[in-house]
Amino acid sequence: MGRQGLYPITDRIGPLVPDDGEGLCTLFIQHTSASLLIQEDYDDSARIDLENWLQRLVPEHDPLYTHTLEGPDDMPAHIKSALTAVQLSIPYQNGNLLLGTWQGIFLWEHRHHPGARRVLVHV
Amino acid sequence: MGRQGLYPITDRIGPLVPDDGEGLCTLFIQHTSASLLIQEDYDDSARIDLENWLQRLVPEHDPLYTHTLEGPDDMPAHIKSALTAVQLSIPYQNGNLLLGTWQGIFLWEHRHHPGARRVLVHV
Amino acid sequence: MGRQGLYPITDRIGPLVPDDGEGLCTLFIQHTSASLLIQEDYDDSARIDLENWLQRLVPEHDPLYTHTLEGPDDMPAHIKSALTAVQLSIPYQNGNLLLGTWQGIFLWEHRHHPGARRVLVHV
Repeated sequence: MGRQGLYPITDRIGPLVPDDGEGLCTLFIQHTSASLLIQEDYDDSARIDLENWLQRLVPEHDPLYTHTLEGPDDMPAHIKSALTAVQLSIPYQNGNLLLGTWQGIFLWEHRHHPGARRVLVHV
Repeated sequence: MGRQGLYPITDRIGPLVPDDGEGLCTLFIQHTSASLLIQEDYDDSARIDLENWLQRLVPEHDPLYTHTLEGPDDMPAHIKSALTAVQLSIPYQNGNLLLGTWQGIFLWEHRHHPGARRVLVHV
Repeated sequence: MGRQGLYPITDRIGPLVPDDGEGLCTLFIQHTSASLLIQEDYDDSARIDLENWLQRLVPEHDPLYTHTLEGPDDMPAHIKSALTAVQLSIPYQNGNLLLGTWQGIFLWEHRHHPGARRVLVHV
């Protein structure tokens, strides 16, 4: 993780799914300033617009914020994380995540200089 | 699916739940421009206001958008889908979804002229 | 529940998790004007800013609302509930919820004078 943005993780989750049978693969992110997202995986422009839109909705340096000790991107990160998903359960069958044609799984980093991020996977 | 809006699907999910025992019924929508929602099922006006409010928050023709090739409703649909649920897990017991008194399950269509929509159900 | 706000419930969920083995603990709130949230559990100011921010995004007395019979806080509560989580699945192991260091579980009450709230827990 080097900066704010959407990081594709589909290819890291897929191999964790069992080769046969069916069930649910549940992802849980152990942070309150990053989130999980399923979005269009095809066209970069959709993800860039999505990021810019949320950035505008939840800007830094909003005079409303009192929680500012950890930097101007900290409180926006908490708000963005509250508006998006901390957990996703995705059906799988015979070794494949049953994502739609255009769907990809992303880690959405909301901080500028994040530390390591942990996503728990339960199958 | 004929247009944008909230489509009730509770009556289509209920019969898929086993007659005895208890567990979770998980819904997963395989799209990035429609979402799943649990909302008040009683009064139409609440759903109409909800739709109009989100429409105003995420309008078409926003100069911020660069992803516009698929029409003016495409990028708003992706953003709306990112702000709402792609997946819901609902407890059931003895053949009944354990929804609250006023809760109903809806497919929230964000496009004007959508194709068929697929929701996977895992029990 | 006495008023709008974030009510910590981590300590009420933790003891419901089995002492050994691993799995998922799923919470489901049976209401459409309150929601579930995982957020920073450490600093009160982050939660206060989050509440104030959402209050400003979804104010009372918006002329857009037609669903006003149940009071000025009712329609904002439905919208806030649509933007946040009705359900959370959290992994557990050997009697412990696998929350991140700073994560806590909250019931987010969106009404001023709510009745009793029910959260179903499935392990």
